[in-house]
Amino acid sequence: MQERCHDRRNTPRTLALALGACTGLLSATLAWSQAAAPAPAASQPAAKPAGPAAGKKASSADILAASKPADWRAADPELTLQMELPGGKVIIELASAFAPVHAANIVKLTRAGYFDGLAIIRSQENYVTQWGDAEEEDARARKKPDTLTKAPAEFDRPLKGLKVTALPERDTWAARVGFVDGWPVAVDPKTGRAWLPHCNGIVGAARGNAPDSSDGSGLYAIIGHAPRALDLNITTVGRVLQGMDKLSSLPRGTGALGFYEKAEERTPITRVRVLADIPEAERPRLQVLRTDTATWQAWLNSRRFRGGGWFVHEPSKVELCGALPPVRTAP
Amino acid sequence: MQERCHDRRNTPRTLALALGACTGLLSATLAWSQAAAPAPAASQPAAKPAGPAAGKKASSADILAASKPADWRAADPELTLQMELPGGKVIIELASAFAPVHAANIVKLTRAGYFDGLAIIRSQENYVTQWGDAEEEDARARKKPDTLTKAPAEFDRPLKGLKVTALPERDTWAARVGFVDGWPVAVDPKTGRAWLPHCNGIVGAARGNAPDSSDGSGLYAIIGHAPRALDLNITTVGRVLQGMDKLSSLPRGTGALGFYEKAEERTPITRVRVLADIPEAERPRLQVLRTDTATWQAWLNSRRFRGGGWFVHEPSKVELCGALPPVRTAP
Repeated sequence: MQERCHDRRNTPRTLALALGACTGLLSATLAWSQAAAPAPAASQPAAKPAGPAAGKKASSADILAASKPADWRAADPELTLQMELPGGKVIIELASAFAPVHAANIVKLTRAGYFDGLAIIRSQENYVTQWGDAEEEDARARKKPDTLTKAPAEFDRPLKGLKVTALPERDTWAARVGFVDGWPVAVDPKTGRAWLPHCNGIVGAARGNAPDSSDGSGLYAIIGHAPRALDLNITTVGRVLQGMDKLSSLPRGTGALGFYEKAEERTPITRVRVLADIPEAERPRLQVLRTDTATWQAWLNSRRFRGGGWFVHEPSKVELCGALPPVRTAP
Repeated sequence: MQERCHDRRNTPRTLALALGACTGLLSATLAWSQAAAPAPAASQPAAKPAGPAAGKKASSADILAASKPADWRAADPELTLQMELPGGKVIIELASAFAPVHAANIVKLTRAGYFDGLAIIRSQENYVTQWGDAEEEDARARKKPDTLTKAPAEFDRPLKGLKVTALPERDTWAARVGFVDGWPVAVDPKTGRAWLPHCNGIVGAARGNAPDSSDGSGLYAIIGHAPRALDLNITTVGRVLQGMDKLSSLPRGTGALGFYEKAEERTPITRVRVLADIPEAERPRLQVLRTDTATWQAWLNSRRFRGGGWFVHEPSKVELCGALPPVRTAP
């Protein structure tokens, strides 16, 4: 989600953390863009980020304001969903590079109207919000389309074929981390495998005990601190690009593991559509910041070095799940 | 918050992530407790956790079920607050070892009734929920007690005097991390300083541009992925022990930085009391798992090694902000 650093209220005390979220809005120079060399692949140790240059520092908002159209890629309308809830819309981009069979299935399920009238069945504090068919095992509420494919466990994929822009910071969970095409990625160079990590806002496919028991008909979004212990244990299928608050601010379920105990506590899903099926004039036109550009490196550096204003200690670091690429509506 | 792994619904597909959250409920042996040696101080590199022993593994629930009374410490009634919201109670323990002046001020403010009738004024997605006096700078809604002390910036404290149980896993943000007396702690051995990191559920004191401009009258809780870039930039003062969902499931504010734009969007604070001032029979009796025990090491290992059941890949790691000590009501 893009930072909203405009229209600051002119009340210093209530601003408080406001200044922690975005400083230096008035400096317009991209002090960092020239420092951004092409980053090495995530399978190689990356150089440490340099310290801040003397003088002006560009804020994250500055970097985005000065970005060029080519710094952004459009969310693919054939792989992006609009889920309509009573509280608003949730836009989810599917990660076909990581979970191609699940992504294709989810598109088929969506086009068959499978999710329409189903519900959000679980919200567990600091963990996940989950949706799908609450009655799946017995009185199934919705028939699945015949075209659905038996999905393998798509927990990871070969690193080969991914152009990863490495993040030099160390990660607790993976030997190497970085970004590819606007997606966060974790890498194990020993196995040559890569995966979409369980960051806040990442969407996965619920499964039973068998690793290949997910088909995309039950989905969850991470709503708290990244539960990376789930990585390599379940298929991650996408990212919420807009409307995370519609999933994270639901009342938590009071049943075991945050399941809602009564049907009336569930939030109904009005409708889910593939963006390509929505008339173009009504379609959200979301873009994700590309991660193979100098602008991306400048943005990361603006997060590492916040100097001036509110910050008194330079974080000097970013973290994989704390640096998901910004999303905007196409200008 | 303690894991709730009981009463599993007997519907394999909706269980899905349920099994990710807690496996091995039926094995009762504490396979790990004997492996837990006294941990080195966080200022020393700690040994890597050993691999899982062959055979049974104890689940987190097993470890807690088999714990002894001495494995827990009571939340201090003189330093723990009960905040009453229309939606329920939030219990916050103050960290006097990290922010003694702020903690004392917050107790004074609470006893003076300062927070009663104020409101939650901000909820920003994947960041913070903040409460206090929305009108502080001009038409102040509440007078502060005269006994309030001018608080210094309590961003960190000397490592000396803290008995830290190290966490061997590497952390993106701090050179050393661990736990002390049931609190997470980050350490810089070079400076000899230690601090309470911005994990989900940690409470801090809002400030303006001056580092020493917080006094404890404006507070926030972290509701998303740990924004550790705030560490060493603002005073952390405590932890929400119970009722995090009451703060995290509020509608997000639509103003800049998640501030509510209209007064009627704010959630009123009915009352805040220090637990010691609540009649003992009505007082929540919360306990935090101690972090200097073999049980604590066994619990960490049960999170690292989940083998059997749902998990197909052993995480083999825990992360500082993903392993906050469990909280329970005294049995």
